[in-house]
Amino acid sequence: MNRGLLIVLSGPSGVGKGTVCAELRKKDKELIYSVSATTRAPRQGEVEGINYFFKTKEQFQSMIASDALLEYAEYVGNYYGTPRDFVERMLASGKDVILEIEVQGALKVKEKFPEGVFIFLLPPSLDVLKERITGRGTENSDVIDHRMNVAVEEMNLIHYYDYAVVNDKIDQACHRIQSIITAEHCRKDRFVAGLNTMAAATEKA
Amino acid sequence: MNRGLLIVLSGPSGVGKGTVCAELRKKDKELIYSVSATTRAPRQGEVEGINYFFKTKEQFQSMIASDALLEYAEYVGNYYGTPRDFVERMLASGKDVILEIEVQGALKVKEKFPEGVFIFLLPPSLDVLKERITGRGTENSDVIDHRMNVAVEEMNLIHYYDYAVVNDKIDQACHRIQSIITAEHCRKDRFVAGLNTMAAATEKA
Repeated sequence: MNRGLLIVLSGPSGVGKGTVCAELRKKDKELIYSVSATTRAPRQGEVEGINYFFKTKEQFQSMIASDALLEYAEYVGNYYGTPRDFVERMLASGKDVILEIEVQGALKVKEKFPEGVFIFLLPPSLDVLKERITGRGTENSDVIDHRMNVAVEEMNLIHYYDYAVVNDKIDQACHRIQSIITAEHCRKDRFVAGLNTMAAATEKA
Repeated sequence: MNRGLLIVLSGPSGVGKGTVCAELRKKDKELIYSVSATTRAPRQGEVEGINYFFKTKEQFQSMIASDALLEYAEYVGNYYGTPRDFVERMLASGKDVILEIEVQGALKVKEKFPEGVFIFLLPPSLDVLKERITGRGTENSDVIDHRMNVAVEEMNLIHYYDYAVVNDKIDQACHRIQSIITAEHCRKDRFVAGLNTMAAATEKA
């Protein structure tokens, strides 16, 4: 069996990563969503292992110490991170895993998991991004300007990624990402590695 | 406008390159088929510039001398080759071009056009390839053995290619190749190069 792929979907705040990721999972039921670990308390209806792996602070810190996380960050007093073990188990069983994450987190994942497929989601234009950021709430123009500056800085990190997908229409963006996943499975290096694994397994048997 | 891609579809004799290529062109009317130049006489119904560019021997040799061909070969006393100019004009106008070619020719194209996307079509198994080669005619087993040996040697050239696509079902193979084309257009390097070209054009205007 061929090993699965880790697909890392990132892009600037406001680009629509979450929406695209949710739509992709609807279209492809085989795609596994990477479940994060967190120290924050479960909310009503959240299920262990589905929404999050819920951890105590001590457990989380021990995961950090043993390099059990592909990346982690602290946010409003709680830890959030990507357990390596869950991803590895899924990939080994031949499943593709999608990890939706902000741009800084994606770069940390790339350090520990360079064989992942790194996709950068782009807005059709800066104007559209501003509309989306503005549309989120009733923030004043200073807050919006700040968010736009952050987003433009985040866009410069596109250079660390393998693919760029414009999120003009969600269906189009999903089609492109699905094509990338199919194409990456056809890459000769992965294909030949798969053949070698099969040959080794056959010899052993 | 983004530059088109040169898609080079190759693989061992008998794998079904021609059938897959014809099906791809049916599914994607925008895909341009690379037209070969030849010194052989036009057959009934063949149209200049559609089936072939028909050349005299002198014209063809002058194309060789001026490096106007991405590859060429002699076969049963006639020359066949891939004119670089046709491919370049189509790519510059933003069209993707597909070139269906045997494995040795593909390697020559790679030398002159390394930015092409090189796809190797594989049979589902050697048994299936043998069936296909046998099914072609009434050759004796020596001829079939020889063709199989050639095909197996050709398969080793997969290492020079970017992608491997198994031709198990034609529709599946076409879907994978179409995904590869879509994905290659999303490659970050191509995308950023496209942005830079646009920016330069805007500055100039």
